Amino acid sequence: MIQVHYLARHIREIAYPNYYYEITRKNRLAEQKATNITWHEATVTKQEREQLLNQKGCVVWFTGLSGSGKSTLANAVAHLLHERKHHTYVLDGDNVRHGLNKNLGFSPEDREENIRRVGEVAKLFVDAGTIVMTAFISPYRADRDQARELIAENRFVEVFVECPLDVCEERDPKGLYKKARAGEIKEFTGISAPYEAPHIPEVVVNTAELSIIESAQQVITFLEKTALVPSEK
Amino acid sequence: MIQVHYLARHIREIAYPNYYYEITRKNRLAEQKATNITWHEATVTKQEREQLLNQKGCVVWFTGLSGSGKSTLANAVAHLLHERKHHTYVLDGDNVRHGLNKNLGFSPEDREENIRRVGEVAKLFVDAGTIVMTAFISPYRADRDQARELIAENRFVEVFVECPLDVCEERDPKGLYKKARAGEIKEFTGISAPYEAPHIPEVVVNTAELSIIESAQQVITFLEKTALVPSEK
Repeated sequence: MIQVHYLARHIREIAYPNYYYEITRKNRLAEQKATNITWHEATVTKQEREQLLNQKGCVVWFTGLSGSGKSTLANAVAHLLHERKHHTYVLDGDNVRHGLNKNLGFSPEDREENIRRVGEVAKLFVDAGTIVMTAFISPYRADRDQARELIAENRFVEVFVECPLDVCEERDPKGLYKKARAGEIKEFTGISAPYEAPHIPEVVVNTAELSIIESAQQVITFLEKTALVPSEK
Repeated sequence: MIQVHYLARHIREIAYPNYYYEITRKNRLAEQKATNITWHEATVTKQEREQLLNQKGCVVWFTGLSGSGKSTLANAVAHLLHERKHHTYVLDGDNVRHGLNKNLGFSPEDREENIRRVGEVAKLFVDAGTIVMTAFISPYRADRDQARELIAENRFVEVFVECPLDVCEERDPKGLYKKARAGEIKEFTGISAPYEAPHIPEVVVNTAELSIIESAQQVITFLEKTALVPSEK
């Protein structure tokens, strides 16, 4: 792997043979201008990024049982918003558990830290002006509320993906319920660990009764009503 | 704080009095369509996000001594790119150390974990299609190379912000060198802890010799040459 990198860097040097030299030469030849010019610290503000993207940075926090359809729904919302030229990103187990949170297990403390980090990363994306979707079971109300606390009140959209346990278990897309019932997975949400439904989520969708597109549309309707995205003409 | 949230949610309910009821009613009235419709899992790809943003997602990793100008330069690059309608974001101590990494100190292990998490978050932003700038001393070559390993080879732009120690110490924008010399800060990079300069960074800028704008322009020239952003007409 290291060798591949060195090779690739070598290729880069071949592709731009004079690049480093040019810079170095320019550096050396440059007059001592730096100290004479005052650079007024220019930062791009959140508002400016939002203006560029024509949307408000916000987090759409999907919560629900395993198999309730959080990830599918998050991706569907992202897809519909992308078609409307919005910048979106989905944080889920695939890109977070194997990366940022790969040093966390499933103990109560680690689960809490998992959700804390997701909340903090979501906050950075919100600050970047992106509409970021999070798709984690996030079974504990306290953990979700902690994430909510991090984000400006009107930029945190909690979506309760409601779906009866028996429907989730019938779907069992990853075969996890079967394993949980067999005792192979301990502390499985809904079977051997609690799920605390939100008291007052911004949106409730019932994926047992509505199609994914209908469910996604409900989320988007909320984003429009709260002016996080402009309404479609 | 909790009370403020409940109040705010209450206000939300006043603003959209029928919202939850409408959804619930719609849910209950809806026919059992969900099971009949096959939703082809639609995810927005990195390439699609990049097309939307008219740029390639990449990380511009600034490394250098305290006071070398990493943050100022990162913000200047972001500013110039934003003017060209690019979506950028700067990760630095201000938004990372007090958030995602607030449970980390300055021990060697914690410093390593600090940079690891920054690398993982940068990777998520790259995947989102954003041009993300990181402005951390990141003194250890191994830690920076670990971050590089996470990112596709041509999407990691290491910028060595070269500036002699005496110039950094003279600038001392946060008064840290003074404290380090007085022994009030232990293991301060450049004084009592090592800084390992990159062997082959993509870009080297010398902020003692060049102005911030000139330095920023060098970074942008590299991004243009490697087609991470389109060249300006």
